[in-house]
Amino acid sequence: MSDIHKRVASSFEAQGLMATLGAELVSVTDGEVQIALPFSERLSQQHGYVHAGAITSIVDSACGYAALTKAPPECEIVSAEFKINLLRPAIGERFLAIGRVQSAGRTLTVCTGEVQAFSGSTCKVVALMQATMVNVPA
Amino acid sequence: MSDIHKRVASSFEAQGLMATLGAELVSVTDGEVQIALPFSERLSQQHGYVHAGAITSIVDSACGYAALTKAPPECEIVSAEFKINLLRPAIGERFLAIGRVQSAGRTLTVCTGEVQAFSGSTCKVVALMQATMVNVPA
Amino acid sequence: MSDIHKRVASSFEAQGLMATLGAELVSVTDGEVQIALPFSERLSQQHGYVHAGAITSIVDSACGYAALTKAPPECEIVSAEFKINLLRPAIGERFLAIGRVQSAGRTLTVCTGEVQAFSGSTCKVVALMQATMVNVPA
Amino acid sequence: MSDIHKRVASSFEAQGLMATLGAELVSVTDGEVQIALPFSERLSQQHGYVHAGAITSIVDSACGYAALTKAPPECEIVSAEFKINLLRPAIGERFLAIGRVQSAGRTLTVCTGEVQAFSGSTCKVVALMQATMVNVPA
Repeated sequence: MSDIHKRVASSFEAQGLMATLGAELVSVTDGEVQIALPFSERLSQQHGYVHAGAITSIVDSACGYAALTKAPPECEIVSAEFKINLLRPAIGERFLAIGRVQSAGRTLTVCTGEVQAFSGSTCKVVALMQATMVNVPA
Repeated sequence: MSDIHKRVASSFEAQGLMATLGAELVSVTDGEVQIALPFSERLSQQHGYVHAGAITSIVDSACGYAALTKAPPECEIVSAEFKINLLRPAIGERFLAIGRVQSAGRTLTVCTGEVQAFSGSTCKVVALMQATMVNVPA
Repeated sequence: MSDIHKRVASSFEAQGLMATLGAELVSVTDGEVQIALPFSERLSQQHGYVHAGAITSIVDSACGYAALTKAPPECEIVSAEFKINLLRPAIGERFLAIGRVQSAGRTLTVCTGEVQAFSGSTCKVVALMQATMVNVPA
Repeated sequence: MSDIHKRVASSFEAQGLMATLGAELVSVTDGEVQIALPFSERLSQQHGYVHAGAITSIVDSACGYAALTKAPPECEIVSAEFKINLLRPAIGERFLAIGRVQSAGRTLTVCTGEVQAFSGSTCKVVALMQATMVNVPA
């Protein structure tokens, strides 16, 4: 495990919400982080699909950790803001959130993210995010 | 309880995520819905504050249900997209999300939302949302 | 004219785009700035209404200058990002963009904005913005 | 020129704002539209760079026309909302906005867009957009 993977994994384990949702850290590379979420009725909205809030939670974390891979060692990352489009109902057995750094500045890092839904052998993108992360002193 | 309050309450109870987070439906009036969330370590990000994803989940639901109070009886509401600014760390004993309809069209309803954090006798706005909800046949 | 009004007016006059669009600085108070735009065919989209880009330009400037009224004297403001909902066609004889500071931090200032359309004796809100402005050294 | 290219070109020519800014329609393919904008002091913000409003105008139009290439023949497109991140100052001799369809539904089409700045032999992405377009009867 790389140093940055360890740093992200340690922070991820400290996020109570990720455990509550059942999310798992899947991969950490320079500028890209992936987080998986198995379907559970505990995450549903009123029609039984996964709630936009759960989808948002994992892709926000994926974007934040992607930003962390580009941040100076003495900095942590917090979300300043994000926007998400829910493209279709979040139906699937498993979801994968991918966060990618598009531009890393001194203070602000802009990321894009997507969430893929896996159902049998099909994979569909169910959400797109554009996020602004901010470096803060650790 | 008004008819629309009953309709919202019934839908809210069907949202597994709201129970998982510990959120409670507080009030339903024409064009405005309030949802409360007590602090829990189960909702935290890495610094112990409430995760942006949990904050987003309750204000997204509040905006969606506010839109439902303005929707035709044969319609349900799904989130098309939203944008949220996290103004400061979500520190508090209890959080209140307020969703308000700003403009209700035939297909799209635009809402604004905010999340207030209560800590002792102080109350601070920790997040602002602007959301687009879409009417879909029930 | 207050010092901050003078500072905003001087910056506004340096914005070539505001003159090109025909926009006028209307008012500057602590945390709120208003910019007006008379209708012109030169600003239209394909149906003859005012283009979303022109509407966005004036409310982005209004939000930026609202942020400037709260910024330290040695700082200028640039737009980090914004999101705008176009609520209805921008039909009117005159438009008024209002930018308001919601939260001013050390680095980031969050504003909301709206654009009102005036037509005869009626006034309608045609757009809502939520924006993140960033302080930069002057 | 393809039928859809003709349709987009005809609509583009009817947009007064595009002529006022000096924008040119560059290319129209299935799901992607490009619009160019030469630098002019008439488009500046207070530091002499191109104003976020002008950058937003061309990428909003590019996203809208990209959506039009996927719309049923009896529909037109209007912008419901968009969010844009300004990644760095818009400095350059020429700008190119690219709008791409990410998901085309019955009513809503979600697009992403970017604006590239060309300066001598360098090209930098200066803005990223995520937009929701809505089909309306022509």
